[in-house]
Amino acid sequence: MAIPQEIPETIIERLAVYQRYLTELVHEEIERISSIELAAKMGTTASQIRKDLNWFGSFGLQGYGYRVSELLYQLNQILGLKNETTMVLIGGGNLGHALMNYPGFQVRHFVIKAVFDNNPALIDRNMNGLIINSMSLLPAYLQENPTRIGIITPSMIEAQKVADLLVDGGIQGIWNFAPLKIKVPPHITVEYVHIIESLMILSYKCKSKTHQNRENGG
Amino acid sequence: MAIPQEIPETIIERLAVYQRYLTELVHEEIERISSIELAAKMGTTASQIRKDLNWFGSFGLQGYGYRVSELLYQLNQILGLKNETTMVLIGGGNLGHALMNYPGFQVRHFVIKAVFDNNPALIDRNMNGLIINSMSLLPAYLQENPTRIGIITPSMIEAQKVADLLVDGGIQGIWNFAPLKIKVPPHITVEYVHIIESLMILSYKCKSKTHQNRENGG
Repeated sequence: MAIPQEIPETIIERLAVYQRYLTELVHEEIERISSIELAAKMGTTASQIRKDLNWFGSFGLQGYGYRVSELLYQLNQILGLKNETTMVLIGGGNLGHALMNYPGFQVRHFVIKAVFDNNPALIDRNMNGLIINSMSLLPAYLQENPTRIGIITPSMIEAQKVADLLVDGGIQGIWNFAPLKIKVPPHITVEYVHIIESLMILSYKCKSKTHQNRENGG
Repeated sequence: MAIPQEIPETIIERLAVYQRYLTELVHEEIERISSIELAAKMGTTASQIRKDLNWFGSFGLQGYGYRVSELLYQLNQILGLKNETTMVLIGGGNLGHALMNYPGFQVRHFVIKAVFDNNPALIDRNMNGLIINSMSLLPAYLQENPTRIGIITPSMIEAQKVADLLVDGGIQGIWNFAPLKIKVPPHITVEYVHIIESLMILSYKCKSKTHQNRENGG
């Protein structure tokens, strides 16, 4: 499958959503799904899904819909989830532990290979089979073990310093949970996880629903 | 300030982003910012920001820009962050701990008031000053302590059962970290946190940048 070079980011975002849903469907042992059902499940339209997938070739059959496992296979190809993605985790605190146990990693071949922290109370502890290493060992580790993604957890207050070490170590992407912006060279990708935004949105919606119910005498 | 009833969801999402940035600016002691600077920081345009804010009234001055603390105050009003938002946390595992320590909650008046779990190994443990209660106590707690938001962590495999208890207990919104869809009545809002999507997007971008660099001989 030839993948075009410049896919708009919003399409990749939707493909990631499709991938997650299809993984759920496989888990539920659903073999086939119509494009309308699939769209309804994901809060979009059948035509949107078709347009998004058309960037990468032709999927599904008119009047038959999609074969779930086949479409998932293709999405995994597009998103590069068929090969192992190596990661290092920076921060052996609570969020780090939660990520180590995150149920969605394994099936997508995301693997945390090593953990580092600068908190002496955590160093040398065992964390799901990995020993938490001192941050001072990170550069040597990355030199010996080329790694694709570095995860920065919120406990790392010096996120920029950590990011610099990761970049110097040849990492390609940073998954940043620290609530701080970091600067990286243009060939490095940073993806921020700002969970606080989703909580603010939830809070607003609750308030506005309550308000509407009152207005409607409900 | 009169708030119109039907604000499109995408606008609320952007307001939450603005709120987060402005909180950072206040933290950095920046008092004033031009609309162009603000837009550049947030990867949007000055006209987009103006349009979004126009839903709620007139902010900023031509040629002067925005007063950071004033705009933040207004956003907090709109998003309902000036009053305390009460929450219960269901799941006293690692992610639960991480949320208890989340730096962005306090400043926005989000408060976790109680923690529940059904794992006997966790019940009665102290978690940042709160005792982890047995899930069996949740209905009585909610009856005595009206609570706005329930947080479901990924360790809760029976997310639907937990959601039912929360809904019966009069909760208004559910912040769901469990990778499972839950069904709720229409007056309840559910916000999902699917961190795996952001990791898939990061992974894809890394791959495609590497590919481009190779194509460019870089």
